[in-house]
Amino acid sequence: MKKVAVILAGCGVFDGAEINEAVLTLLHIAKAGASYQCFAPDMMQMHTVNHITGDEMAANRNVLEEAARIARGDIKPVTELNAEDFDALILPGGFGAAKNLCDFAVKGPEAVMQSDVLAACKHFADAGKAAGFMCIAPAMIPMVYGQGAKATIGNDADTAAGITALGGVHIDCAVDDIVVDETNKVVSTPAYMLAQSLVEADAGIGKLVTKVLALA
Amino acid sequence: MKKVAVILAGCGVFDGAEINEAVLTLLHIAKAGASYQCFAPDMMQMHTVNHITGDEMAANRNVLEEAARIARGDIKPVTELNAEDFDALILPGGFGAAKNLCDFAVKGPEAVMQSDVLAACKHFADAGKAAGFMCIAPAMIPMVYGQGAKATIGNDADTAAGITALGGVHIDCAVDDIVVDETNKVVSTPAYMLAQSLVEADAGIGKLVTKVLALA
Repeated sequence: MKKVAVILAGCGVFDGAEINEAVLTLLHIAKAGASYQCFAPDMMQMHTVNHITGDEMAANRNVLEEAARIARGDIKPVTELNAEDFDALILPGGFGAAKNLCDFAVKGPEAVMQSDVLAACKHFADAGKAAGFMCIAPAMIPMVYGQGAKATIGNDADTAAGITALGGVHIDCAVDDIVVDETNKVVSTPAYMLAQSLVEADAGIGKLVTKVLALA
Repeated sequence: MKKVAVILAGCGVFDGAEINEAVLTLLHIAKAGASYQCFAPDMMQMHTVNHITGDEMAANRNVLEEAARIARGDIKPVTELNAEDFDALILPGGFGAAKNLCDFAVKGPEAVMQSDVLAACKHFADAGKAAGFMCIAPAMIPMVYGQGAKATIGNDADTAAGITALGGVHIDCAVDDIVVDETNKVVSTPAYMLAQSLVEADAGIGKLVTKVLALA
């Protein structure tokens, strides 16, 4: 049975992991007969957003504690993620991927990754193990894999330009499709960067999980 | 296109809506070509639980604001739910269903429903419109439909006894199956009362959504 590590950025599209993407990722891993373990950085979120009003909430929240809601409590700090224990890595999206796992949401082409998340991702990359990034998370692909790594966030020109500035090669992609960098064994899909429905998100995420497991 | 109202109890298995159940519900509705609108009561949760430690957190949270995380912000107060606008109703589970939508978690056979949620559910029942309840949410079936309504929460004897004491008829059920009360047009499934995996939960929830839409 193949084992997949999943790094979550919190719990909620505007300040954490996009919940639908996270659950669909876990569903497709399980349906493929593979197992998963969720991880998240044990740190405060960049901020916490009221998902009705869009306003910042006074009390901030911890990424790991919030991500535990998606994982039903079965989650570990990302510092405990050892690539040797897994066959592949997947990072769902949501603004948290660009606010907590890296700072692309505020820094764009000057973005850097949270150090523990970067170390974990680099370990998979250095070991030649497959990985998948969805939604805005592919902004981290050049930060992990370096110059020339292929990635997609769909077709938003400004976001694509940010990825290019970081050294990545952005390839436009439909919501139900994936971009595969065979050299780096890294797969990306637009998910809710483009999805207008759960069915659209499900199609691309299912394809990503299938490809990541095939490369694993 | 059939329209389904979904009432969420927050965001997280231990104090709100079970996230996997909620997303799988929305996914199966969308895959069936139906549409959905999420609702939740605009009130404070019974309490807020750290999903890693299980401890109660100092700052409590609002059910509607937290449920909005699952719904990507597209959610309305349950007081705005009018059964006339929908073909069917579905309530995912999670402890929040027994802590926020009713108080079955603490009152058991003496439980009552949150008044706005009860009014919304009663409106569907009185109109003869189909409904589905999953996980612990079927504890509300006797509170909505009265004496003799059929419901399942799986096979936990104590919980089943609570439903019986409330006037319901509990029927043991496998995780991948449903119990149908044809008279009341109400369907229930154990979901995470029994599920050991997302695949198991998905099977029962998929069957529930299919049956609810067939009855709608």
